[in-house]
Amino acid sequence: MHKPKHHIFVCTSSRANGQTKGYCQSNEGLAIMQRFIEEIDDREIGGDVFLSNTGCFGICEKGPIVVVYPDNIWYGKVHPDDVEEIMDSHIEGGEIVDRLVI
Amino acid sequence: MHKPKHHIFVCTSSRANGQTKGYCQSNEGLAIMQRFIEEIDDREIGGDVFLSNTGCFGICEKGPIVVVYPDNIWYGKVHPDDVEEIMDSHIEGGEIVDRLVI
Repeated sequence: MHKPKHHIFVCTSSRANGQTKGYCQSNEGLAIMQRFIEEIDDREIGGDVFLSNTGCFGICEKGPIVVVYPDNIWYGKVHPDDVEEIMDSHIEGGEIVDRLVI
Repeated sequence: MHKPKHHIFVCTSSRANGQTKGYCQSNEGLAIMQRFIEEIDDREIGGDVFLSNTGCFGICEKGPIVVVYPDNIWYGKVHPDDVEEIMDSHIEGGEIVDRLVI
């Protein structure tokens, strides 16, 4: 199969039982997800960049969490306004956004 | 932060809005998740192996889907009974389970 070049995981506190309850969900996890959807669509890079929402990563004190694989870069305290920089710098520019790395 | 050696993502069709509806959820995605929880607990390797449920990966025809990062190995048509082999062979043994790779 065609694997994504970057697979972005956004914690939306999505529990497997259907509940969405947790730090990231309460702190704009969904807005972060929405911003990524918009940026990926606008840039027309959906073939190379894949986006997934997830359940809790267990490091809520560093949330909201965004993880990029296979790069294995973990970002914390992400705000929806940071998404454009992550897309510009990391996903399209290849430069990790150091100030958000945890 | 301490990054997991293997991060296992299981599709449970967890939508960001709280719905859990989709192919993997209807085809034992939750049972697969539960089996991984048990295997990781039993082997006491929770410090090195991280488990997350996700929303739909968009390749439902190959589901249920399990992805292991940063290895970047995608497994499809996974059955709960396959979990022990994935743990033994791939996660603990370093040998990818070829018959499930998509």
